[in-house]
Amino acid sequence: MFIFQAKNLEKLGTEIFRVQGMPLERAKFIAKTLIEASLTGHDSHGVYYFVRYSERIRDGSIDPLAKPRIIKETASTALIDGHWAPGQIIAMDAVKNAVEKAKMHGISAVGCFRCNHIGRVGYYTNWAAAQGVVALMFVNVGNQNVTIFNGMERAFGTNPFSAAVPTGNFKPFLIDYATSVVADGKINVARSKGEKIPTHWSRNKKGEITDDPYAIKEGGWLLPFGEHKGYCLQILMELLGAIMTGSRSGFDEEEMPPSTNGVFVIAFDPEAFVGLDAFLKRTDDLLQKVKKIKPEPGKRALIPGEPEWETREKRLKKGIPIPEDTWNQILELADVLGIEVHV
Amino acid sequence: MFIFQAKNLEKLGTEIFRVQGMPLERAKFIAKTLIEASLTGHDSHGVYYFVRYSERIRDGSIDPLAKPRIIKETASTALIDGHWAPGQIIAMDAVKNAVEKAKMHGISAVGCFRCNHIGRVGYYTNWAAAQGVVALMFVNVGNQNVTIFNGMERAFGTNPFSAAVPTGNFKPFLIDYATSVVADGKINVARSKGEKIPTHWSRNKKGEITDDPYAIKEGGWLLPFGEHKGYCLQILMELLGAIMTGSRSGFDEEEMPPSTNGVFVIAFDPEAFVGLDAFLKRTDDLLQKVKKIKPEPGKRALIPGEPEWETREKRLKKGIPIPEDTWNQILELADVLGIEVHV
Repeated sequence: MFIFQAKNLEKLGTEIFRVQGMPLERAKFIAKTLIEASLTGHDSHGVYYFVRYSERIRDGSIDPLAKPRIIKETASTALIDGHWAPGQIIAMDAVKNAVEKAKMHGISAVGCFRCNHIGRVGYYTNWAAAQGVVALMFVNVGNQNVTIFNGMERAFGTNPFSAAVPTGNFKPFLIDYATSVVADGKINVARSKGEKIPTHWSRNKKGEITDDPYAIKEGGWLLPFGEHKGYCLQILMELLGAIMTGSRSGFDEEEMPPSTNGVFVIAFDPEAFVGLDAFLKRTDDLLQKVKKIKPEPGKRALIPGEPEWETREKRLKKGIPIPEDTWNQILELADVLGIEVHV
Repeated sequence: MFIFQAKNLEKLGTEIFRVQGMPLERAKFIAKTLIEASLTGHDSHGVYYFVRYSERIRDGSIDPLAKPRIIKETASTALIDGHWAPGQIIAMDAVKNAVEKAKMHGISAVGCFRCNHIGRVGYYTNWAAAQGVVALMFVNVGNQNVTIFNGMERAFGTNPFSAAVPTGNFKPFLIDYATSVVADGKINVARSKGEKIPTHWSRNKKGEITDDPYAIKEGGWLLPFGEHKGYCLQILMELLGAIMTGSRSGFDEEEMPPSTNGVFVIAFDPEAFVGLDAFLKRTDDLLQKVKKIKPEPGKRALIPGEPEWETREKRLKKGIPIPEDTWNQILELADVLGIEVHV
């Protein structure tokens, strides 16, 4: 395990994307979102993607210069053709558009198709909440590595859901998770670290219980979280993320870039309801009360987003740990691209 | 256990509410929603409430004649003061308003406060989906009988979530569940039937594992579903259902009617995105593929809403089973109200 400072990794990421034909502002933004993911402890969506996105730029899946275009629009809705631009650029366009419309009309929704991997979904909802609106994101992943409730074969992607709500003085409130028990990135990280995984995460290709992080690569599958209740969300993400937007569903057979995301964002302004001030005050008050709930022995009462916030503060000071395997891939990539690494 | 035909129970329910001062159309509608809940197998939200709502009419919690009023409105949003009218009347007003606005402007949201128990949330989202729009409902229950993830005391109500999506020829797609492992009504039903409950549903007042359906009545609590992921939804329901609408949160100490609901509805029209025809076609196609997923031995691949649909077809033919305890309470109530029972 290596440990590097966030700002140095961000510069390296920017350089990696820039030299592959990405305009500087785009390169900076994508590197920033990946570093934010690493800072918050979501290593599965962090610097790990320096190499993955580079592969996708080289194989033509990500078009560094493509411009997302709105193809259908009303005062409170939009549908964006991402034109296979970098997913982060498309998702940020969508969220900015949704926030603007929500502030004008109380509520809005924006869908995106032909969209590459957008990274950690919480980045966008958290950004929206910082503008004073609530944001919900329903995302499908256009592949199949998760089974359904009661299922014995691959069906959907890890189909993440995210929600963020503005707070007053309280830390940001953020929900951001895969509707599988874990994101597949978490299994990539376990492989990078050479670790076994918990047995309730996945099954091998025969449907047997396994702790092998390679089983998923060898025809196995992840399980949805929370039995039938988590499964309901998994399929809702598919219906809104993919079907509502015209994106690829896990079941579609046409050839597409790997890990495409169908993205559906809803944003709304507390001003249209109880009012922003009242909302912030009561939200802070509620979250403070939740923090005081008596926990089970040895456990803590946590607010959604709190572990990420804590990890972020720690890693901003102490640096971001990177598994040797991931780091070696980054060094190899930098070498191919002729970039000198200063971290 | 007694078994009665839905239409006879619906007439009885209508009569019970009518003689207590409810206008006929309201009485009919409330009875219909409760019978629909019983038909779909949600006995916890069905005829069981004939007696509970009657208690609340008598103690003044439910005002049979009150009219919900919109106190804040834009083209795509509304906030409704329910004035403690029957919850079903308020929720249906909200959903109708949301659907109308969604059809005009692509997306809408409507919140309700001072709202009594609205019954089975899926009734409303399912109704909206039948009008060709997607509906999401975020509901809090203004009491405390569920702990949080890692928690050792009561914090929130069972805070249900519901989502319905229009389908073409496929059965209705409906998500409708408590964010606790089970709705507390399911424990009421277990008590009525004299049955033990699974040990992962609740804890007794000391925080110990229990299979006693009375433990929850004696200071125990329910658990949120799906560990931290279900807990995130539980608290999101509180923030949107209660705080966004200005409704009572579980933590509020002011005296309020029992089982109040804070209700936040979002509705949106596929026409604003991929288009309704394309949405219906791909949704049907997707759900058919899900039905063909290989299941675990002895299990079935199920669509959200399918078990309810199957139970409904069966109970429409064979009748609705009612536990003796529930039925005796209904007979007693009918006697007090001077109603002759013909079922």
